[in-house]
Amino acid sequence: MKDRQRHQIRKTIQNLSDPDLYRMVYMPGHGQPLPSVEQMAGIIENIRAILFPGFFGENRLQTHTLQYHMGRRIDDLYESLSEQVRRGICFRCPNPDDEECRKCKDQSPSLTADFIEKLPDLRDILEDDIQATYNGDPAAQSTEEIIFSYPGIHAITNHRIAHELTRLEVPLLPRIITEMAHSATGIDIHPHAVIDRGFVIDHGTGVVIGATSRIGKSVKLYQGVTLGARSFPLDEQGNPIKGIQRHPVVEDNVIIYAETTVLGRVTIGQGSVIGGNVWLTRSVPPKSRILQQKAQTMNFTRGEGI
Amino acid sequence: MKDRQRHQIRKTIQNLSDPDLYRMVYMPGHGQPLPSVEQMAGIIENIRAILFPGFFGENRLQTHTLQYHMGRRIDDLYESLSEQVRRGICFRCPNPDDEECRKCKDQSPSLTADFIEKLPDLRDILEDDIQATYNGDPAAQSTEEIIFSYPGIHAITNHRIAHELTRLEVPLLPRIITEMAHSATGIDIHPHAVIDRGFVIDHGTGVVIGATSRIGKSVKLYQGVTLGARSFPLDEQGNPIKGIQRHPVVEDNVIIYAETTVLGRVTIGQGSVIGGNVWLTRSVPPKSRILQQKAQTMNFTRGEGI
Amino acid sequence: MKDRQRHQIRKTIQNLSDPDLYRMVYMPGHGQPLPSVEQMAGIIENIRAILFPGFFGENRLQTHTLQYHMGRRIDDLYESLSEQVRRGICFRCPNPDDEECRKCKDQSPSLTADFIEKLPDLRDILEDDIQATYNGDPAAQSTEEIIFSYPGIHAITNHRIAHELTRLEVPLLPRIITEMAHSATGIDIHPHAVIDRGFVIDHGTGVVIGATSRIGKSVKLYQGVTLGARSFPLDEQGNPIKGIQRHPVVEDNVIIYAETTVLGRVTIGQGSVIGGNVWLTRSVPPKSRILQQKAQTMNFTRGEGI
Amino acid sequence: MKDRQRHQIRKTIQNLSDPDLYRMVYMPGHGQPLPSVEQMAGIIENIRAILFPGFFGENRLQTHTLQYHMGRRIDDLYESLSEQVRRGICFRCPNPDDEECRKCKDQSPSLTADFIEKLPDLRDILEDDIQATYNGDPAAQSTEEIIFSYPGIHAITNHRIAHELTRLEVPLLPRIITEMAHSATGIDIHPHAVIDRGFVIDHGTGVVIGATSRIGKSVKLYQGVTLGARSFPLDEQGNPIKGIQRHPVVEDNVIIYAETTVLGRVTIGQGSVIGGNVWLTRSVPPKSRILQQKAQTMNFTRGEGI
Amino acid sequence: MKDRQRHQIRKTIQNLSDPDLYRMVYMPGHGQPLPSVEQMAGIIENIRAILFPGFFGENRLQTHTLQYHMGRRIDDLYESLSEQVRRGICFRCPNPDDEECRKCKDQSPSLTADFIEKLPDLRDILEDDIQATYNGDPAAQSTEEIIFSYPGIHAITNHRIAHELTRLEVPLLPRIITEMAHSATGIDIHPHAVIDRGFVIDHGTGVVIGATSRIGKSVKLYQGVTLGARSFPLDEQGNPIKGIQRHPVVEDNVIIYAETTVLGRVTIGQGSVIGGNVWLTRSVPPKSRILQQKAQTMNFTRGEGI
Amino acid sequence: MKDRQRHQIRKTIQNLSDPDLYRMVYMPGHGQPLPSVEQMAGIIENIRAILFPGFFGENRLQTHTLQYHMGRRIDDLYESLSEQVRRGICFRCPNPDDEECRKCKDQSPSLTADFIEKLPDLRDILEDDIQATYNGDPAAQSTEEIIFSYPGIHAITNHRIAHELTRLEVPLLPRIITEMAHSATGIDIHPHAVIDRGFVIDHGTGVVIGATSRIGKSVKLYQGVTLGARSFPLDEQGNPIKGIQRHPVVEDNVIIYAETTVLGRVTIGQGSVIGGNVWLTRSVPPKSRILQQKAQTMNFTRGEGI
Repeated sequence: MKDRQRHQIRKTIQNLSDPDLYRMVYMPGHGQPLPSVEQMAGIIENIRAILFPGFFGENRLQTHTLQYHMGRRIDDLYESLSEQVRRGICFRCPNPDDEECRKCKDQSPSLTADFIEKLPDLRDILEDDIQATYNGDPAAQSTEEIIFSYPGIHAITNHRIAHELTRLEVPLLPRIITEMAHSATGIDIHPHAVIDRGFVIDHGTGVVIGATSRIGKSVKLYQGVTLGARSFPLDEQGNPIKGIQRHPVVEDNVIIYAETTVLGRVTIGQGSVIGGNVWLTRSVPPKSRILQQKAQTMNFTRGEGI
Repeated sequence: MKDRQRHQIRKTIQNLSDPDLYRMVYMPGHGQPLPSVEQMAGIIENIRAILFPGFFGENRLQTHTLQYHMGRRIDDLYESLSEQVRRGICFRCPNPDDEECRKCKDQSPSLTADFIEKLPDLRDILEDDIQATYNGDPAAQSTEEIIFSYPGIHAITNHRIAHELTRLEVPLLPRIITEMAHSATGIDIHPHAVIDRGFVIDHGTGVVIGATSRIGKSVKLYQGVTLGARSFPLDEQGNPIKGIQRHPVVEDNVIIYAETTVLGRVTIGQGSVIGGNVWLTRSVPPKSRILQQKAQTMNFTRGEGI
Repeated sequence: MKDRQRHQIRKTIQNLSDPDLYRMVYMPGHGQPLPSVEQMAGIIENIRAILFPGFFGENRLQTHTLQYHMGRRIDDLYESLSEQVRRGICFRCPNPDDEECRKCKDQSPSLTADFIEKLPDLRDILEDDIQATYNGDPAAQSTEEIIFSYPGIHAITNHRIAHELTRLEVPLLPRIITEMAHSATGIDIHPHAVIDRGFVIDHGTGVVIGATSRIGKSVKLYQGVTLGARSFPLDEQGNPIKGIQRHPVVEDNVIIYAETTVLGRVTIGQGSVIGGNVWLTRSVPPKSRILQQKAQTMNFTRGEGI
Repeated sequence: MKDRQRHQIRKTIQNLSDPDLYRMVYMPGHGQPLPSVEQMAGIIENIRAILFPGFFGENRLQTHTLQYHMGRRIDDLYESLSEQVRRGICFRCPNPDDEECRKCKDQSPSLTADFIEKLPDLRDILEDDIQATYNGDPAAQSTEEIIFSYPGIHAITNHRIAHELTRLEVPLLPRIITEMAHSATGIDIHPHAVIDRGFVIDHGTGVVIGATSRIGKSVKLYQGVTLGARSFPLDEQGNPIKGIQRHPVVEDNVIIYAETTVLGRVTIGQGSVIGGNVWLTRSVPPKSRILQQKAQTMNFTRGEGI
Repeated sequence: MKDRQRHQIRKTIQNLSDPDLYRMVYMPGHGQPLPSVEQMAGIIENIRAILFPGFFGENRLQTHTLQYHMGRRIDDLYESLSEQVRRGICFRCPNPDDEECRKCKDQSPSLTADFIEKLPDLRDILEDDIQATYNGDPAAQSTEEIIFSYPGIHAITNHRIAHELTRLEVPLLPRIITEMAHSATGIDIHPHAVIDRGFVIDHGTGVVIGATSRIGKSVKLYQGVTLGARSFPLDEQGNPIKGIQRHPVVEDNVIIYAETTVLGRVTIGQGSVIGGNVWLTRSVPPKSRILQQKAQTMNFTRGEGI
Repeated sequence: MKDRQRHQIRKTIQNLSDPDLYRMVYMPGHGQPLPSVEQMAGIIENIRAILFPGFFGENRLQTHTLQYHMGRRIDDLYESLSEQVRRGICFRCPNPDDEECRKCKDQSPSLTADFIEKLPDLRDILEDDIQATYNGDPAAQSTEEIIFSYPGIHAITNHRIAHELTRLEVPLLPRIITEMAHSATGIDIHPHAVIDRGFVIDHGTGVVIGATSRIGKSVKLYQGVTLGARSFPLDEQGNPIKGIQRHPVVEDNVIIYAETTVLGRVTIGQGSVIGGNVWLTRSVPPKSRILQQKAQTMNFTRGEGI
């Protein structure tokens, strides 16, 4: 290394190690570690193997040994998730080093056990989602194929896990869990969104479901559908006001085709069909059928392009 | 662990280990293992290194040792893919434990060898895809750059592999292979779709190509384009009828711009250009030029939002 | 293995190992290795831990030991990135084996040190991006959450790294870096695009930003927005002419909603709001408000579908 | 690579790949794979965690979840050991490809289950070995410390596992198992050796116990002790005659000190103490006390050395 | 799996999971985890890289970046060793779950910091050991070769680390550390043994140095030398009395040749040379020269053997 | 971390990072990396799979694909060993940064190719060693078992590899290679030792063979045998004089039993048998038979001990 480079590198190290030069992106304030994205990935992999034994994790399970594998996995889940829940709670805790934080720590095992207790219900709901996906897809050849390789089921599974943790008021982890699914599938469902049974997302890339969305039974969304917010009111300091209901309500048995954008606290009435590539910022009554304006045919000479 | 948590966990283990409580999402019925997604990922990585030596896998290959690396990789491929093909066939086999299943098992080596024999053809077709991508992208600086980092080529490679396995009637694996590409690139091509040479997908996130689509020579699709199905006929039990031709036919030299949705068994005539964000559910003749209705300019005051 | 299969495999190995049968997708010409995508992934992971200490990499950092971890990481970065920069330069070098190539090799340490010297500036700009994301999202509960799990920040970080390497004229690596972010987030930003501070991409799946785009301060894009090119002029051989300004200019404070496609060297005037699902191939003046034509309501009977 | 080197390498590859040039060290004759030393290492690690739960493997076990971890581990053991037993049997099988070999294959699950059934007995015997080690070592502070870090217990555990497989007439694997312990501890016990309870090896490096040795209750050996064979009779072809009793019998309560060599089918009578560095090729009656001839004191001047 | 095997396995699981069937080899009593041998291996690897930078760990260190790598490694050591020290202390703690145990926990960081503070002294002493090894071995070509590949230095390094932890009264870990060296080198030095500077072990396999041994300056031992205990007094319950001085004192400048056994609290006077294969259970004055009785030459006819 | 600990750690980092405080154990002088023990382990594993295909590495090899695996492994060996040879040479090079060092670098590929060319000869010699081991061990059931699990063959293989590199005057690597075998088997053979065909080491723990030893055809050594040096002459500075013939010559067909020590440049005449636990510092004529003095029987009362 030449002197000039040595100088550049030493200066950069000093600069990046100087807490006074951080404006806002500072290190986590106290010595408690943040949740680990890598650990969370292992935890979700474990839950997937618990919910769908034989499909993920061990692939030679047999009925008479299932309980051992299930027991081992759930015991591991209890240990590993407790630790991440503790970190998530500590992250929000104002005084992580004193007795207060000890209280936080005591919460994590019981929250984790409460979550684990819900797993059989989650499996039950997911069975409905899988059945609905199978019923609605002529290309699907078996429910096993769907569990195995459909990104919609992948994303909904992560959402239902994350939503349960949200209900238990565990901070930070739910968002990490849904973002994992987002990265793997292109489907971005906020953990706060409330979604009923029999939910189908087909293909799914580009789907966005905002935090205050409410989705009824047996709804089907195609790729690229957004359930988003319009612009939102600001408070006196010019910051967005938090907690306002700002995303759509989609009632039972609605289908929304690819790439359509629905914004604001509007209601899509039950049984409606919304065509693709539509921009929709108003409510529509039950059994509506909404389509984009018919496209226009233009003259053109190749070479001009579009 | 406190008593309450111990109780919650023990109950959950029992519940999730009880086969009688599974409604539909049961374990694979017989003792034969399902295909392994992890193994398939390694197999596809191997095939990519075989098709594009020096780009993936070993990065110091030289002409005079190429045959050894190629030989080793193809021998490994034969072993590892045979096993996964066997699992895929067994998955569909009604009697995996008896002599019938033995027949299944005997099929897998010959199917695998038939697949391997097609690899030189696949490479030849992919060269056309790469050349077409290069010709159509002013930002591309070399074909190497395209092999290396263009998601379109990644997805088309997986599709052409999966399609070949589909032609050999190998179950389950093709879908796993295309879903891997979908997760990595956001491009979802059904393995059954028939796609001719010189195919280009630019950027590609959100592209969906349905199972019965047929795509001609030198077609170019941009990100977010869907070639999908309209609603489909149900049989007397209310299940979708399988195997109907329900996706578009796209003829030679067609370009479809970003986010456009084409649904149903319609034909896009050769040489047509379809603009972006269009919803199209009808056939268009050759050399058509179709655009979305012109957007409207609205008045607004900042603060109202849209 | 039966004789037939043995024959098929031997023939395939010979075929794929014969340099004369390669039409165009040949191995890299000289013995110098290509950049390694796997190594680049580790390098980017390292830079992310340098820019956001405590969030990525070690998760127990404390102020008084930060300098050691920073120093070690930057020293590692210098070593590992130098090697990849050398490979990138060699890839373009016409005579990698002679003295000329030696010159290439000498460049890589100084380019790498120049890049490292820019890291504090990158962090400063990214702080603005994070702050803008926080200000614009009522669902965000802290800036930490954004660093941790927002795909927009992930993609912009990779872009700003890649853009810096582009400015230093390092070949091949920038494209690999942005494609990593594309695969993880569905956001595809060309490393050449020039993007000012306070840039926000929300959700982001399907966003495409072309090579000659210019984006002003405090711009916000939603998922599925394309800043692309129209068809481009060809030279006398029918190849696209490289280097033409062919992507949009987006001025300060513009918002573009989901799935909108803007094509060509058009200008979106400052302060404009473009609604979602719009196809836009013309410039609009400052403070414009552009929406898709209102969707049509159709009659329908369920069973007919759309 | 220069031409000369290219030539050297090509010639070497041809030479080493030519079956006709192998004199004796040929590849395994049929396509069946040999046992995998790596897999066996994992299997032994698993058995150690089964026999000593909490010490090896999971280190947070609790009584109420022990059964799940035990169940999972034993189920894994059944699967993985069955496969290696099958390979071991096939290795000896003269006709591995025909129906005969199928019979071999059918043996492996039942042999494996028979072995597993013996694990509780093995644990019981090992408890005696551990207790005897504790009683005999003033430096040992707890039995846990002994389980954790005493090489003697490590080697005896491997021996007792291997000996059990020997009794079930599983070929090849027992030798691999004892050789693992030999490599880790320097203690080389042949799997055929018969060793009673309460056996102690202290420090142990260099201990050798031959195949036909018989060792009584509560025997203690120090490092470097050999129980070996003298020269052995040859058959008419000049090959050693197999199966002759050629190693020592060591009766109950014998102690043999460091580095002593006992050769041949001699008997060390019960309660005897053999000092260190002794060469002993004759039987000694019960309660004997044998020492090396007293060393001689020599004159010397430093610089001459010895 | 057949019914019989299923039965065998289920019975074994029950048996091994039943705490009542454990006689003595029980699981660790309380929920606190035992030290992890695997973690300890990483910690020792880290310390070796700290003591011998450039030889172990990073192999491209340069003077101007050494401080960063050293700082990172020592910070990691502090974190990881603190945790293992805590586990070691808890293992001995009678009430690990109450406040008492909290006190234990508070000890571990300060003990760890005290240990780290001693590292420069350890390095200084080890430099003398290396120099002495170099001076005494005509085959050694450089001190670097000795650091790199001499098992004696490997074992002495581990001993000096373990001895320091013993002085700090950390339980369990010292023994794990010396046993690692024992397994790798065949040299078994008890952590309590007191060993002065300039200590050389050549080749070393089979060397045993007991807990109460004391070794002076510039002593050299060859392979297979034992400094052990004779039989030891028992207390009234028949258990060995702990803590008695029962191993040899070896004064300055002594050489002991291969395979010699010295037992009991005897003194080998300074400057003595003890030949190989000697059994020595008495003290010898300074400058003694002790050899085995001269071997006898026997008549023999090949075929009779020995 | 408390202030006191923070201070201790910071001081230690400074101390250990200060080059002026190193007395002798300095970092490698120039920026060139030392050979990597970890890389060398992989290289030796590769060579073992080349010499014994099907036993190590791939365990499903078949004759018709052997050449591909062999070719790939030897190509990898060429690349990886060249790099380590270069580092070994650089380590001795006085001016690694200038043109001189470039010359060094140019040597490594040709030395590596010369080594590779010798591999068929090595295999041929090792076949004799294996056959001799089989002939001499009644417990051996096949030559495959010997290749698979006999530590003697492991150690001799490493020695013959290392010796070949020694003949090519490659520094440092040979010693690393033999030390690997020493750690795994307890057998320490100096790479300079000259050993003829048909060499057998049984069990082997504790065997030491010094640098200037010469061993004839069909020699057999048991565990714990030392062929070592007596004290050696010093030069005027008191350093040992290098390069003197100071280890034994063992002629053809000699057997030496366990734990015997032979020191100095003495000759063990052909056909001799040396019993175990003998200390031998003089030459013996051909066909000698040497035994330890007969041990003495002592009276004793249990409780007195020895």
